[in-house]
Amino acid sequence: MIRVCLLGAGNVATHLFNAFQNTKSINLVQWYNRDIKKISTFKNTVDITDDISKLSEADIYIIAVSDDVIPEVSTALPFENRLVVHTSGSVNVHSLDKKNRRGVFYPLQTFSKDVPVNFANVPICIEALDKTDLKPLAQLAEAIGSPWYKISTEQRQTLHLAAVFVNNFTNQLYRIAHEISDAKNINFDILKPLITETAKKVQEVSPYMAQTGPAKRNDKKTIKKHLKLLENENHKAIYELLTESIKKTHGVSSRPRTKTDKRK
Amino acid sequence: MIRVCLLGAGNVATHLFNAFQNTKSINLVQWYNRDIKKISTFKNTVDITDDISKLSEADIYIIAVSDDVIPEVSTALPFENRLVVHTSGSVNVHSLDKKNRRGVFYPLQTFSKDVPVNFANVPICIEALDKTDLKPLAQLAEAIGSPWYKISTEQRQTLHLAAVFVNNFTNQLYRIAHEISDAKNINFDILKPLITETAKKVQEVSPYMAQTGPAKRNDKKTIKKHLKLLENENHKAIYELLTESIKKTHGVSSRPRTKTDKRK
Repeated sequence: MIRVCLLGAGNVATHLFNAFQNTKSINLVQWYNRDIKKISTFKNTVDITDDISKLSEADIYIIAVSDDVIPEVSTALPFENRLVVHTSGSVNVHSLDKKNRRGVFYPLQTFSKDVPVNFANVPICIEALDKTDLKPLAQLAEAIGSPWYKISTEQRQTLHLAAVFVNNFTNQLYRIAHEISDAKNINFDILKPLITETAKKVQEVSPYMAQTGPAKRNDKKTIKKHLKLLENENHKAIYELLTESIKKTHGVSSRPRTKTDKRK
Repeated sequence: MIRVCLLGAGNVATHLFNAFQNTKSINLVQWYNRDIKKISTFKNTVDITDDISKLSEADIYIIAVSDDVIPEVSTALPFENRLVVHTSGSVNVHSLDKKNRRGVFYPLQTFSKDVPVNFANVPICIEALDKTDLKPLAQLAEAIGSPWYKISTEQRQTLHLAAVFVNNFTNQLYRIAHEISDAKNINFDILKPLITETAKKVQEVSPYMAQTGPAKRNDKKTIKKHLKLLENENHKAIYELLTESIKKTHGVSSRPRTKTDKRK
């Protein structure tokens, strides 16, 4: 039985709370939040508190608060030499107060407030300054059904960056497609199966192998046609830059291939 | 029973062939290809030919060949006043020879050569110069289980462009994430559930509503951190341009919102 104390009541904290509640091998001993109102609905389910000086004993303390306040919350902890982790993708593990054993428990996924999360689809990146602390963090991940990966701070920050590409930027491409089709009264639903299939393809095949389209074929006629159709200057710039990027990746332009190209 | 004659043996033609074979309400009367060798394996299943002057009678002739040769194939047809369609996303319906009744049957999806296609996930964009021809095209789509949409040539060309954004460009963002994580020895598998979830989210919620991340929050500190991490100039330029685009969409920069923003 892993005893957990959860700090914070944002998106990640709330989804972790739900996961912990549904797991027999985890004993959520306490839920702390600065503003008690945000968690008071759960007072009959779990011991809640807004007094950080009165935290109960636990095996793992999870600080799931905004990046900016992680250091101050970790400093306010009223004990020493216990395992304390944060859940951020970009904050260094050393930002935690060194009076405790420090680590990271970073769930790499996009969370919507009201949509239940299946943690089987949430890889957990774990890190610990003391190697022996990796085991309880891995057990915690396994208890909620998540795959876990041992990841260094540098790797985690890189993953956080890569996540911006595959999540925020990809979503913005969807948005642009939505704008373009809206302008011609086209139902965006028509594009949804293609969006699904594009994501599905790279689950099995590398993105390098999965690439198709006018840029990869260097089909100048179609590219010219598309650029003519685009009215928004920002959309046009994105089209040109990503077309250039695909050409570079696939050796269509004069640039030599990179090591990664050759591998897959 | 819809009688169909299929012309061409590329990716789209082959997947359509399989779909037609598996559908009782479609009678594939003939399969034509300039190079008979490419389809000769199927000679016991269907009447095959490489002689365009000897095409059988059918209700719909589907020209599924490269964009460039659609006009010449349609001109070579040895009959008049029959329903002839092409399957291209970008070719004008008027590119078909006017001696026949002209239309389009454009499946909007990414096809891999050896992966079987479930046509329930393939929206078909149909167009016909003579309105009465829309019905058999819709019936053909329904026979293979595909949702269909009545789409004009201009709309289809716009969809083809939008598809480049949600498929080719999105895939290139996956590729960049792959490169970035490879460089730090990070397993790309960690990002796969996020890729899936990002595509899944916009099936229900508009991309505008689904957006999250540093650009939308105007989190300058994280953006600066990310730009510092990026070593490749092309990746950096893409990061900056897409961050700018998200800011514009969500009114973070000084630019006024557009009509589409307000709607969703």
